[in-house]
Amino acid sequence: MATEDFARWAARTEATLERLLPDPSGEPSRLHAAMRHASLGGGKRMRPLLVYAAGTALGADEALLDAPAAAVELVHAYSLVHDDLPAMDDDDLRRGRPTVHVAFDEATAILTGDALQTLAFSALAAVDAPAQLRIDWVRTLADASGVAGMCGGQALDIDATGGGGRKRGQVHFPLAENEPDPFFSLSRLQRMHALKTGALIRAAVRMGALAGGADAATLAQLDMFAAALGLAFQVRDDLLDIEASSEQLGKTAGKDAAQDKSTYPTLLGMDGARAKLGELAVAMDQALAPLAPRAATLAALGELAVRRSH
Amino acid sequence: MATEDFARWAARTEATLERLLPDPSGEPSRLHAAMRHASLGGGKRMRPLLVYAAGTALGADEALLDAPAAAVELVHAYSLVHDDLPAMDDDDLRRGRPTVHVAFDEATAILTGDALQTLAFSALAAVDAPAQLRIDWVRTLADASGVAGMCGGQALDIDATGGGGRKRGQVHFPLAENEPDPFFSLSRLQRMHALKTGALIRAAVRMGALAGGADAATLAQLDMFAAALGLAFQVRDDLLDIEASSEQLGKTAGKDAAQDKSTYPTLLGMDGARAKLGELAVAMDQALAPLAPRAATLAALGELAVRRSH
Repeated sequence: MATEDFARWAARTEATLERLLPDPSGEPSRLHAAMRHASLGGGKRMRPLLVYAAGTALGADEALLDAPAAAVELVHAYSLVHDDLPAMDDDDLRRGRPTVHVAFDEATAILTGDALQTLAFSALAAVDAPAQLRIDWVRTLADASGVAGMCGGQALDIDATGGGGRKRGQVHFPLAENEPDPFFSLSRLQRMHALKTGALIRAAVRMGALAGGADAATLAQLDMFAAALGLAFQVRDDLLDIEASSEQLGKTAGKDAAQDKSTYPTLLGMDGARAKLGELAVAMDQALAPLAPRAATLAALGELAVRRSH
Repeated sequence: MATEDFARWAARTEATLERLLPDPSGEPSRLHAAMRHASLGGGKRMRPLLVYAAGTALGADEALLDAPAAAVELVHAYSLVHDDLPAMDDDDLRRGRPTVHVAFDEATAILTGDALQTLAFSALAAVDAPAQLRIDWVRTLADASGVAGMCGGQALDIDATGGGGRKRGQVHFPLAENEPDPFFSLSRLQRMHALKTGALIRAAVRMGALAGGADAATLAQLDMFAAALGLAFQVRDDLLDIEASSEQLGKTAGKDAAQDKSTYPTLLGMDGARAKLGELAVAMDQALAPLAPRAATLAALGELAVRRSH
């Protein structure tokens, strides 16, 4: 049963993070506590679940997948801490709890994100696995997180929205002027999300697949699946931002509209966005077809991304 | 001549960074430009020089040292960008130029630091070198940069000074109350610097030495040298903050006194701090003795750390 697998994998992720994170009683205790606040006891753990699902589908041991699963979650957690900062999205609530700069302070939040990112690479480098696999993981994770991936996507996002609470010196919003064509806007939006959230989701699937010794054809098939899943996850996120409450989401709802942000529903309408989700579900099924029935848990994660209510 | 080596290695570092950094004309161009502003055309490049000096002392090819030299400089550059932020040291001037959050904006500065850190690990993972060496580099750099190294040291520093411009929620300054003993204060200061600047300097030497195939005994000898050099660098930094002008330093002078910071001169007096520098110079010589004459450029870098005027 996929649901049992997910619960077990989430528990493995929590246990691995607990082991990797610094002791709360050690010095500097404020940073240690903030790193734990940012990464323990919350979140859907979708990226770790993707690592386990892709890896076990190809026959990898769950134990071999602990480090890449935790590493990708640490990168995700660091990005949330920094994205929530006053100079970025200026958000107070995350995973149903105060954000790090609210619970601690801004300087600690900056350092917490920095140290969580570093810890991801420490974890991959130190684990008991072949050197070639470890370096392939490092490369996959670093390339997906940096300027050509997640950081680049976040930069495109703040370019488009002009950042959060605190004003920035020069803001250039590339969607405003010479772009009356909504299809062009949509392709920009898609590119931003492909980097901001898509790259790390694809990295999660790839890191699992690498542990399972996937050949090039399988990696390509799984990458098609992951790209569709990443986009579906984002479309669903945009819909939830409108449909759901902050309580359901564990983070501030209605932020997109408040920031006058371009989203799938604003560009396609609610029905258009829902239709897009349907298309992406089909794309996921097609990408996994050559791997069936081994890819059942991956397929279940794809469904979850499309149907989730928080 | 050591000076010619240093000039050539600094040029190699600049060229490698130029190759690794994203194209200034590509999107998101603001982030690309900020990453280049933060890491090109400035700085003493001391950490890269240590990589080259340690590596070539043990017979490594200069070309093999390009990636670790650039990687350690990228981590150093990222740490400066984040340390200069308003919530941290709130500094406007760095390497004789406006800091990133001044030249660009705060959100871009946060992302720039993040992406520079990631790029360091991408660079190590992607280079043409044996997988075992690459993963040893990643581990050395990550362990030195994280919560048990540079980030931890910065957290101890802001715990002690209460951060920069923007007030933090709770500040606890562990030096204030129950610590009348100056030797205890000194040991705390030493611990903070050993993490904040020392760990990365030791990592630079170790990464070079690993490329040269150093055995455990040589690694230990070089680590003693690097630990003394890191401390000497900091003592000299504290003296320069008092003796030199902002123009000479390329960063704001007199900050320590303005922030009422504990430094070697405040705890030992100017003469005491200079005597400490002398002791550290002796410790460096002793650590390198078993490696002479191969370690001549390392010794020259040690002297530079003790004598530098900016």
